[in-house]
Amino acid sequence: MMDIDMELRVIGRIESSLETKDDCPKQGYEADVTGRIVLDEHYASALEGLEPEQKIVLVTWMHEASRDILSGHPRGDETRPRRGVFALRSPMRPNPIGIDVVDIVAIESPATLIVRHIDQLDGTPVLDIKPHIAADGVA
Amino acid sequence: MMDIDMELRVIGRIESSLETKDDCPKQGYEADVTGRIVLDEHYASALEGLEPEQKIVLVTWMHEASRDILSGHPRGDETRPRRGVFALRSPMRPNPIGIDVVDIVAIESPATLIVRHIDQLDGTPVLDIKPHIAADGVA
Repeated sequence: MMDIDMELRVIGRIESSLETKDDCPKQGYEADVTGRIVLDEHYASALEGLEPEQKIVLVTWMHEASRDILSGHPRGDETRPRRGVFALRSPMRPNPIGIDVVDIVAIESPATLIVRHIDQLDGTPVLDIKPHIAADGVA
Repeated sequence: MMDIDMELRVIGRIESSLETKDDCPKQGYEADVTGRIVLDEHYASALEGLEPEQKIVLVTWMHEASRDILSGHPRGDETRPRRGVFALRSPMRPNPIGIDVVDIVAIESPATLIVRHIDQLDGTPVLDIKPHIAADGVA
């Protein structure tokens, strides 16, 4: 297992109106923010088959989140008892990988998606996009 | 953006009966494989609040997947037209991050979950666990 390549590749960046963590909704579906997923042109062909109105799973690296905190309050509400971070959707976790469903509004060449329900800070690194498959419960 | 820490931390490993890629179902919910998520003991407290029967989103690094392929056939079926990897759930993608919903069967101390509907190879590195929230469509 020593030799496996686990180095993340930043495939693009989020462009959004969310400039600080305080601007961000707790879940993208609670807000109606439209933004862009701007991929490196190298990945243009990897988008083939995606269509407007389709839901996708957007995987990002929440680069401003602390990685060394193991518990927190649900939705940051201190009146609620602490839980482990694996029982929370908080960005604070050992690997701050964001997993969110967004809707494709339009596809702009060469490799940009306009999407709705974004909750990522402007500049957030993008790691992956997967088609959303509701049937199995996630994606 | 130069200084952000994007180094993945392996928080644990999957223990399953799936020894080769050919053993793996295309989606975990198509099989009924029970396996274990064995976390490093350091993360035991991060599990607090998770309960048996709860669904979780299991985030893994699909360490045997090719990272340089940008298109493929849906479900590997060559009679179906090629699509970009971002329109496929294939493990082959620039960052082979696996996102799957599994059911907690039991929690064993110090930091092991027994789970149902696993589709990961034995030894797969674990990156994150999140509670599954059906309401927003993903997790």
